[in-house]
Amino acid sequence: MRAIGYARENRERFVSELEEFLRIPSVSALPDHRVHIDRAADWLVEQLRAIGLNAETLPVEGGHPMVYGERTDAPGRPTVLFYGHYDVQPAEPLEAWTSPPFEPTRRGDDLYARGASDDKGQVFGVIKAIESVLRGSGRLPINVKVLVEGEEEIGSPAVLPWLNRHTRKLACDSMWVSDGMLFAPGVPTITTGLRGLVYTEVVATGAVRDAHSGMHGGAIPNPLNALATIIAGLKDRRGHITIPRFYSSVQPPSPQERAAWDQLPFDERQYLRDQGIETSPGEEGFGVLERRWARPTLDVNGIVGGWMSVGAKTVIPAQATAKVSMRIVPNQKAKVIYRAFERKVRNIAPPAVRVEVRELAGSDPVLIDQSSPIVQSASAAVCEVWGRDPAYTREGGSIPIVSKFVNVWKIPAILFGFGLPDDGHHAPNERFHLPNFFKGIDTVVRFIEEAGN
Amino acid sequence: MRAIGYARENRERFVSELEEFLRIPSVSALPDHRVHIDRAADWLVEQLRAIGLNAETLPVEGGHPMVYGERTDAPGRPTVLFYGHYDVQPAEPLEAWTSPPFEPTRRGDDLYARGASDDKGQVFGVIKAIESVLRGSGRLPINVKVLVEGEEEIGSPAVLPWLNRHTRKLACDSMWVSDGMLFAPGVPTITTGLRGLVYTEVVATGAVRDAHSGMHGGAIPNPLNALATIIAGLKDRRGHITIPRFYSSVQPPSPQERAAWDQLPFDERQYLRDQGIETSPGEEGFGVLERRWARPTLDVNGIVGGWMSVGAKTVIPAQATAKVSMRIVPNQKAKVIYRAFERKVRNIAPPAVRVEVRELAGSDPVLIDQSSPIVQSASAAVCEVWGRDPAYTREGGSIPIVSKFVNVWKIPAILFGFGLPDDGHHAPNERFHLPNFFKGIDTVVRFIEEAGN
Repeated sequence: MRAIGYARENRERFVSELEEFLRIPSVSALPDHRVHIDRAADWLVEQLRAIGLNAETLPVEGGHPMVYGERTDAPGRPTVLFYGHYDVQPAEPLEAWTSPPFEPTRRGDDLYARGASDDKGQVFGVIKAIESVLRGSGRLPINVKVLVEGEEEIGSPAVLPWLNRHTRKLACDSMWVSDGMLFAPGVPTITTGLRGLVYTEVVATGAVRDAHSGMHGGAIPNPLNALATIIAGLKDRRGHITIPRFYSSVQPPSPQERAAWDQLPFDERQYLRDQGIETSPGEEGFGVLERRWARPTLDVNGIVGGWMSVGAKTVIPAQATAKVSMRIVPNQKAKVIYRAFERKVRNIAPPAVRVEVRELAGSDPVLIDQSSPIVQSASAAVCEVWGRDPAYTREGGSIPIVSKFVNVWKIPAILFGFGLPDDGHHAPNERFHLPNFFKGIDTVVRFIEEAGN
Repeated sequence: MRAIGYARENRERFVSELEEFLRIPSVSALPDHRVHIDRAADWLVEQLRAIGLNAETLPVEGGHPMVYGERTDAPGRPTVLFYGHYDVQPAEPLEAWTSPPFEPTRRGDDLYARGASDDKGQVFGVIKAIESVLRGSGRLPINVKVLVEGEEEIGSPAVLPWLNRHTRKLACDSMWVSDGMLFAPGVPTITTGLRGLVYTEVVATGAVRDAHSGMHGGAIPNPLNALATIIAGLKDRRGHITIPRFYSSVQPPSPQERAAWDQLPFDERQYLRDQGIETSPGEEGFGVLERRWARPTLDVNGIVGGWMSVGAKTVIPAQATAKVSMRIVPNQKAKVIYRAFERKVRNIAPPAVRVEVRELAGSDPVLIDQSSPIVQSASAAVCEVWGRDPAYTREGGSIPIVSKFVNVWKIPAILFGFGLPDDGHHAPNERFHLPNFFKGIDTVVRFIEEAGN
């Protein structure tokens, strides 16, 4: 318990250091902020070294530097890789902030700043937990690796290829993704599942050039109408996706998992009110949480072609493109689903247009068995620190880097963050609830100790 | 025949004067060219006065000045209003021009300049024809009005409201639209029909804000998918529009009109080759010309919403808008069709989205009886000047100003131009075939004489 004691004694210093981190406006979306990206990375490396890790920034080709630290002097013990990101969203609109986004300000129990909760506060909490174990106990009972990227908020475009070139360095037994939030205040939440993603473009081509809809309408194909026909043909009237064998490998959540979701403090009616809708139009027979976490979807994300501005232009475009993406769930495979999608699109495409299908992104879904050691250790830590069992959830989104670790490298991963749903991620007045910052540190401390047992 | 003699003796001067007109870069789309717009209008007024008409520029609120001239000293005789436009398309790309667009250049029988054929050469030919009759015969056998607008190339946004305020000034017995082209070289072509237009926006709204397709996909409605369902539901598999009673007032072309179209030098296979398509996807049982001229259509012109740029963004938009337009034919009515469209859209809209339908533009189709005096006089003039009967065609586009004259004011109108299909309207190296300029003047001269009989 000396580590927990250390963590508790140093809380104020931890907050001061976090404030220093938050003052660096490491906005990854703004090219002219590259200097701050580099500064944030260097600052983190110094932090990691100061607490006793071997740390360095590693260049990412065409991207932002990766911060990597490790301490692997516990032979025979498991290796846990902690992952987070040091980049932040743009702070705009600035006028909506009560205090400046890069001048961290405490009001009550909350620390306000861009990145406070997403994700600097969370990744820094992990570092402080490692420090607490090292300083409190003099040693780490496990091997730790810390990987902090600088382009999560722009979709990590350069990170996946980078991962492939650093397979050995990243070898570990489990992965802890330090990003995200509790399901609700007071409900520590371990996320063990993610949906996968198949993101496609369907390109329909009609005549060789854009045409005047008066001069040629009725005689030439309209790629936009054709795309509408294709899209409408991908679902039936009840919202069921009509791609053959689309659902055949869908594995329903276990009765235990479903029962656990039923216990979550989630009010479907409140969700609908928040969304401003009267009914959820999804598949019959599934609750809203299951629809979002464990059912596959098909959504159009945008249609490009013709006149996309204000007012009336009478054009029949030569070509139009629909961005159609699918969220997939265990045990669907992105490659299999993409091929089935492509076949279906070709089958239902009106003969007058030429259709091309492209795959823009694909990642497999993630599902971690709750008997995995990392889940067990995290759960034990939660029980001690929070005085209750964790909630187990999934998320409906897709994180390619997690899919890589879990599905390619077969490394079990959990997502465990200590933010709150109303922390204002990506919004003005982002904040981190400091009691959660401290409890998060304690939880990671206890997790490290548990994992070493 | 003294008028024809005058016209023929003065051909070289007419071309010189036209060249002067063409040197004024009256591009209506470029705000900084307003000075040239005004100069072109003033130049035309001087021309009209010089040949003996009362002429003036009339301000158009929020638009470009209208040139108006008249000579109405033939009491008891019909009044013909000639319409055209003095504004031109932008000349870009300039590097594609062999000679500068605003330095008229003769090569062989062609005069090259922006606006040579569309529409300065044509409207100027009418003025020179009036001059020829006045100077050759000393008097006009009919009353003439000349209306030349300055914003046709940007869609005449301010002209329609202006028309409503000048109903009495524009009173006439028939309208001659001096714009357009022969169906083919050597085929003088009187256009007696236009399709109408109903241009709508269908706005579908789902949740209150754009959502992450991972976090919420499966539980909230997607307005883009809903629009696809609506659009797909507006036509059946054979391309037939499914709006109830949509076709009920469609009046097929007469057997004579169809027979005349069959005689036109039109090669369907060549048309398909030009469009780069293998088959025309339109309604079965109708030829390509009939599909373009006399059948109603429904085309999507653009879909706004979600991610309309390059790459993958996983958004479910809160709202999306489809621009859906219909070309309508005699005797469909824009207002009736719009209401039927709106009802149909509401009926087939998925219940999970809210749908709003807006009418952006509407104009009724135009069809002039071939027994109208203006058609008869024009036809007689063609026979004399061209040594053959005119071809009668329709156009698939919609001209709101013509619809106004014909449908609201009940004034029969014809479109009769002397350009050629390869004159390069709106393209680099626009030209006017001078033998057609001369023959056009002769045709208008003979028309005025015929109309006065």
